[in-house]
Amino acid sequence: MASRLPMLFLLGSVFLSMVSGHNAFSEKEKSQQQKQNPYLFRSQNFKTRFENQRGRIRILPRFDQRHPHLQGLQNYRLVELEIQPHSLFLPHHRDAENVLVVLEGKAIVSIVNQTNKETYNLEQGDVLRVRPGRLVYVANVEQNQKFRATSILIPVNIPGQYENLYPFGNQDPLSYYIAFSKKTLEATFNSKYNEIERILFGQKQQGEKGQEQSSNEGVMVKLSSEQARELRKHAESSSSSSSSPRRRRSPSSSPSSSRPIFNLRNVEPRYSNSYGNMWEVRPEDSPELLRDLDMSVAVLELKKGSLFLPHYNSKGILISQVIDGEAKLELASPHLANERSQEQGQENKHHEEEKQHDEEEKQEEQSEGQIRRVSSRLNQGDVFVALAGHPLALRASKKNDLWTVGFLLDADNNQRNFLGGEKDNVINQIDRIVLEQAVNGSGEEAEKLLNNQKESYFVNAQRSRSDEDQEEGSPLLSILEEESF
Amino acid sequence: MASRLPMLFLLGSVFLSMVSGHNAFSEKEKSQQQKQNPYLFRSQNFKTRFENQRGRIRILPRFDQRHPHLQGLQNYRLVELEIQPHSLFLPHHRDAENVLVVLEGKAIVSIVNQTNKETYNLEQGDVLRVRPGRLVYVANVEQNQKFRATSILIPVNIPGQYENLYPFGNQDPLSYYIAFSKKTLEATFNSKYNEIERILFGQKQQGEKGQEQSSNEGVMVKLSSEQARELRKHAESSSSSSSSPRRRRSPSSSPSSSRPIFNLRNVEPRYSNSYGNMWEVRPEDSPELLRDLDMSVAVLELKKGSLFLPHYNSKGILISQVIDGEAKLELASPHLANERSQEQGQENKHHEEEKQHDEEEKQEEQSEGQIRRVSSRLNQGDVFVALAGHPLALRASKKNDLWTVGFLLDADNNQRNFLGGEKDNVINQIDRIVLEQAVNGSGEEAEKLLNNQKESYFVNAQRSRSDEDQEEGSPLLSILEEESF
Amino acid sequence: MASRLPMLFLLGSVFLSMVSGHNAFSEKEKSQQQKQNPYLFRSQNFKTRFENQRGRIRILPRFDQRHPHLQGLQNYRLVELEIQPHSLFLPHHRDAENVLVVLEGKAIVSIVNQTNKETYNLEQGDVLRVRPGRLVYVANVEQNQKFRATSILIPVNIPGQYENLYPFGNQDPLSYYIAFSKKTLEATFNSKYNEIERILFGQKQQGEKGQEQSSNEGVMVKLSSEQARELRKHAESSSSSSSSPRRRRSPSSSPSSSRPIFNLRNVEPRYSNSYGNMWEVRPEDSPELLRDLDMSVAVLELKKGSLFLPHYNSKGILISQVIDGEAKLELASPHLANERSQEQGQENKHHEEEKQHDEEEKQEEQSEGQIRRVSSRLNQGDVFVALAGHPLALRASKKNDLWTVGFLLDADNNQRNFLGGEKDNVINQIDRIVLEQAVNGSGEEAEKLLNNQKESYFVNAQRSRSDEDQEEGSPLLSILEEESF
Repeated sequence: MASRLPMLFLLGSVFLSMVSGHNAFSEKEKSQQQKQNPYLFRSQNFKTRFENQRGRIRILPRFDQRHPHLQGLQNYRLVELEIQPHSLFLPHHRDAENVLVVLEGKAIVSIVNQTNKETYNLEQGDVLRVRPGRLVYVANVEQNQKFRATSILIPVNIPGQYENLYPFGNQDPLSYYIAFSKKTLEATFNSKYNEIERILFGQKQQGEKGQEQSSNEGVMVKLSSEQARELRKHAESSSSSSSSPRRRRSPSSSPSSSRPIFNLRNVEPRYSNSYGNMWEVRPEDSPELLRDLDMSVAVLELKKGSLFLPHYNSKGILISQVIDGEAKLELASPHLANERSQEQGQENKHHEEEKQHDEEEKQEEQSEGQIRRVSSRLNQGDVFVALAGHPLALRASKKNDLWTVGFLLDADNNQRNFLGGEKDNVINQIDRIVLEQAVNGSGEEAEKLLNNQKESYFVNAQRSRSDEDQEEGSPLLSILEEESF
Repeated sequence: MASRLPMLFLLGSVFLSMVSGHNAFSEKEKSQQQKQNPYLFRSQNFKTRFENQRGRIRILPRFDQRHPHLQGLQNYRLVELEIQPHSLFLPHHRDAENVLVVLEGKAIVSIVNQTNKETYNLEQGDVLRVRPGRLVYVANVEQNQKFRATSILIPVNIPGQYENLYPFGNQDPLSYYIAFSKKTLEATFNSKYNEIERILFGQKQQGEKGQEQSSNEGVMVKLSSEQARELRKHAESSSSSSSSPRRRRSPSSSPSSSRPIFNLRNVEPRYSNSYGNMWEVRPEDSPELLRDLDMSVAVLELKKGSLFLPHYNSKGILISQVIDGEAKLELASPHLANERSQEQGQENKHHEEEKQHDEEEKQEEQSEGQIRRVSSRLNQGDVFVALAGHPLALRASKKNDLWTVGFLLDADNNQRNFLGGEKDNVINQIDRIVLEQAVNGSGEEAEKLLNNQKESYFVNAQRSRSDEDQEEGSPLLSILEEESF
Repeated sequence: MASRLPMLFLLGSVFLSMVSGHNAFSEKEKSQQQKQNPYLFRSQNFKTRFENQRGRIRILPRFDQRHPHLQGLQNYRLVELEIQPHSLFLPHHRDAENVLVVLEGKAIVSIVNQTNKETYNLEQGDVLRVRPGRLVYVANVEQNQKFRATSILIPVNIPGQYENLYPFGNQDPLSYYIAFSKKTLEATFNSKYNEIERILFGQKQQGEKGQEQSSNEGVMVKLSSEQARELRKHAESSSSSSSSPRRRRSPSSSPSSSRPIFNLRNVEPRYSNSYGNMWEVRPEDSPELLRDLDMSVAVLELKKGSLFLPHYNSKGILISQVIDGEAKLELASPHLANERSQEQGQENKHHEEEKQHDEEEKQEEQSEGQIRRVSSRLNQGDVFVALAGHPLALRASKKNDLWTVGFLLDADNNQRNFLGGEKDNVINQIDRIVLEQAVNGSGEEAEKLLNNQKESYFVNAQRSRSDEDQEEGSPLLSILEEESF
């Protein structure tokens, strides 16, 4: 058994090592290696923008500040929204596009236009677009179920930054009307300032008709049962949902072309077998919602112990979050193979430009075709980025099915090219003569290997007991592999 | 009477203060506060690129260098052009798009193509597009009236930078033919170098036929009465204007779809009542001119003592300049509320990236829904930026009508959402139940307040004498409010 | 004879100097001046990404790191590919768009899709687009002729950076399958790991059937005569070329609208006379290939001793490489005229932002209309950039015809405006009255000069002996002019 090579810890190189089957590294070392996956964001990395008893808003730090490779994602932010039962997210607008996916629960969303209001009954799997500047409010009128959603936001003013603006706030938030002078406010409302101040800026008092005592500090406030009931009534009479029969358009399970909402569960899965399903809506499938954003939205279900076959996106960049379950992510990065040690990564800001220039030079001199392997365990809420052309694979744990939501950017004309299995596999189209020059073994042997997996997209990754017994002494084992996964 | 809170001077927070009605701050403090409006540019901030007796070119410093919030405007420059009577702006082309609005006077513009020339008689209110690389010259053939225009330029080579290039120059400017060698020039003109040098590079002498003595240094030169007359004749026989009956297209007051010119006064005002008018042309209204630039152009007339009701642009960014009159600008900024002190703003360039990263982090931890109020007095020539989603209001002084010109960027599908008045008001569409949770007072009271102003867009902002008497002791007065305005 | 002015060496200003006809500067000074052309890249500046006996890949350093004026080219890379006879460039995909022009020789290219393969027989003059993520391999099956091509690459992940990824590599390159764990690989190929390891990761052994001993290290490997023959057979039965009669589309010499390939020699030259030819395909001419990239591709042939008349691109930015011959490039730059000394250029990275801000300020104060002349000798393999609006001229040496390939970016609606000659000349459209004010001499004299060259596009630049005799004492001679060129 070969000895372990300490150099395995050096970033920027990949060594083939021959190590024993057992996992010989400490937790500390493992977590250090995981820290060094620059394409991975842990659930705890989200920062809380707002939180009270009625709900919360959490935002992932900027992608481009995590690592220079993610510069292309500078103007995308990932935001989690949670609203407790009987709660209202106060009316607001923001200076960003919002593509929201409902992960759990229900909510009533109203988007207020100049002459009308669009109201939607959101449920799990719904994808909704709220354009910048649109006034919107969200109510969870359920008794017991909380509402959870994840959004991609695309700021329109300042790259990577956005804000919500609230017309009303009971002092927290501040109503943006506070920015205007007395004179302006009096002319705006054709009323005395006293009255304006009392209603818009005053502290909500107890004892007002129809309202219960509540700690109403914050952008999310409590709804009484009666108010919840009323809102539900209003919504039912005038709203639409992605699947409601009362839609003014002809009922159809395909995303309507002119509405900013559809449900991923209403579409036929793009990939489907007994090991998993993937539902995906692409820009061309939902013009109103996705086309000008050049974005696809997908939900993946991977049965426990199954593998999402290695594949890569030809041109799209994927941002993906684990909704439920656990997974092993394996990713090949050529760019990371050409980098210097990451410890120097973000600390030396002064030298940022210089460093990048040197890295650039260094990169040019590197061997062609180097690959750095990146492997991490994913838990619920974790987020990862797969750049275009980067091969990746996902394996669900043995214990639970895995559910993820994914946003694919620059999605127009993207191809998901598989590196194994039968369908959509570009590797097994290669000329045999060429294969022969590229692999060890005859072209015939190579073709046989490449075509041995008859399934497509999702396969069983569990090994039989007898297979595992044969592992002893196998020459190559990943240092990050955990056999018990 | 509550005491003044010194913390009012801290940027980055807004405090509700209770101060006396009178204006208790010194001129120094007031001007310091105005300096701290990062979205405002004074007329004197323009830098002079060129000036002689015949005219001048002034350019506003780069928006993104004024403040990081204006990064999105990195590739837009604002330029003022002034040409005296009987003067010619020498032929030139530039490496930038140019959308020009005529503020005062008349001029003859010729855009030279490979096989023909387009000549336009410009007058006040005309909007003209000159594409990059187009050879153009401008003549003011009037006797007494100067020509003034404001342009938005969009550089095509280097972000934020552009240059004019002159084929001929009498040594100042230098003819760009100077860049070519003798050999090249002789082959280019099939002539002896002596002759080329004499005509293209030689100093203009006195006594040449038809030409008066003139200080012809510079890109603008004098025209004799005779030359002015001749140019006017040429123009009349072959030119077109935005309203000329001799246009080859059918006469129409709507912007023609295929010509790079229209007059804002030829369109029906988008908003109009006895307190003001706004004429606006959007990308879809004038495809040849504005569509691929994704820009709207508007002129606003606000009668003295009137208010342009608070509103915001859903996705467009507005650059606006005061043409005539004085105004009070009030603007709500959520991004400024989350910033550190601006004194540190631009000086510490070394720490720029670090600072921005820290600000970013800090911002994420800030309370949701903070608003910073920005209020400034505007004079003729001043320029302000209103970012998308930022509510703003304009009040004209009591003494003069206000005229402004505005360029709205990213204009496609923009909605101007009003926060008061009857039309285009998104606030008064909100469910009463939701209002009740958001304001102090019943939903009924709130609705009544929100609907009390029956006018739309522009309203009277003058208060009656009896109103002013009641101001004593009102709880909230803006520290920046000037009652005499 | 006037004395030489030492200030001629100061960058940032142009002086008209009166010097003698002979070239009075040393080689050292001349090369220093040439070094100072920031828009020029020498053939030796290319960095070798890969090289072995079978071929090589060379890449030009990033444009934006060369000079801030080239920021707009941040996301374009220029790459040279060379494949020796009987060699195969292993299958790979990259995270960049690729527009490739064949300069010499032949090759068989296969682009592998999910369900089929497109095979092309490339030959000189072919332009091929390979989209990001497309699996591709290239074989030179000729006996004696090497294959050479130049590409523009547009990265899709990280601005200015791209990588090739190889599924197979005989250890160098590393197969990206190395990134996946044993478990994943076994499930992917439904085979035992031993077998996978042997075939995909094993070192190629001698003695395998049909394969000769070869040093197969690297991304380019040797093909036996038999393998070359086989590949050629496959290609002939199923491939297409830009001019093959066996194309499934109707044979036509215009670029087919739906195929990613065309041959520049199949189109009518845009400009053509006895002194030169230029073949050009613009975005609208080849939608599948060029339209969404907004790029034109052109090849120029300039007969020895001829001049490509001074002209400029109205909005496009040109990247051009010399394929064969030698040339004199002359370029007018207004932006360089406003810069500080370039010695400080790239060294002071810390002060980069500060410096740029100061330069910006400085620029605003400069005189309008300054021009800096840039003149360099070009040899085979050299690359230059001509920004939009910048006048340039090319003169072929007396000894050889000049061939160049050019990529024009932001090409849609670009006009190539000529500054001499008869056709497409914008200068001779200018009003006579205006000419009179702009030049020295009467309008009549000026018009006569501007119209004296009856040829268009390409003219004879050779001077007769008697002309050269008259050069003594001519007032203006370029310091960089070499009479013997």
